[in-house]
Amino acid sequence: MKKKLKRSACPIGMTLDIVGDRWSLLIVRSLMFAKRKTFKDLATISENIATNILSDRLESLERTGIIMKLPDSADGRRSIYVLTEKGLDLMPVLLSMIAWGTKYNPDASYPVKMVKETVRNKTKLIKEARKLQKTYN
Amino acid sequence: MKKKLKRSACPIGMTLDIVGDRWSLLIVRSLMFAKRKTFKDLATISENIATNILSDRLESLERTGIIMKLPDSADGRRSIYVLTEKGLDLMPVLLSMIAWGTKYNPDASYPVKMVKETVRNKTKLIKEARKLQKTYN
Repeated sequence: MKKKLKRSACPIGMTLDIVGDRWSLLIVRSLMFAKRKTFKDLATISENIATNILSDRLESLERTGIIMKLPDSADGRRSIYVLTEKGLDLMPVLLSMIAWGTKYNPDASYPVKMVKETVRNKTKLIKEARKLQKTYN
Repeated sequence: MKKKLKRSACPIGMTLDIVGDRWSLLIVRSLMFAKRKTFKDLATISENIATNILSDRLESLERTGIIMKLPDSADGRRSIYVLTEKGLDLMPVLLSMIAWGTKYNPDASYPVKMVKETVRNKTKLIKEARKLQKTYN
């Protein structure tokens, strides 16, 4: 996904090395707030992500420890994608984008209830993610 | 800078349409915290930005109202780049990236004093930006 980039010691630069890509953060958003889980779920987000880009970004997000790829307990042949604790910790980044995006785009809209629920459940979600990480590592 | 993208109404998607690019946010970072102002200042950030990319992103950041291009009062032939209020309002996005980046990169480092000073002066910086915007519009 990324060309060879000179890495800086700056924590912003380091963050952007990992998620400094429009699609990566939209995938994280959809896993975090919209409870999308499968490849098909993610392929149908409203921004029309191409499936090759989706595959590439999912691989990269898994490699960098933002998401886990797990067998779907409902259908073992299928995989689901779940945020790790590291991925869930991107919540403040996304929330600050929601704040900025709504301030400067009068036509912005988002599922307020879902977002609030996710924020409220953050601790619980992190606990669950830790448990899953232990099981599947 | 951006190919034609289907825009969503999601405020995160809208934010990423504008600054969902590694270089754009690194430029905003350098203007915000490191007090870089001129093209030359920005061309020498530690991440080795190519000058054609820098030009492209500066143009795009100006077009989307994140920065203003002003004549340098010290040397009228030179231009400086200054964040608008809209640009300064990206501060929480960058601060949450600093928090995440330092948490997950033990070797991350940044000019803590400069960042704290900028955060402390946010209101003052916004007032100055508003004044400049009125003068140069």
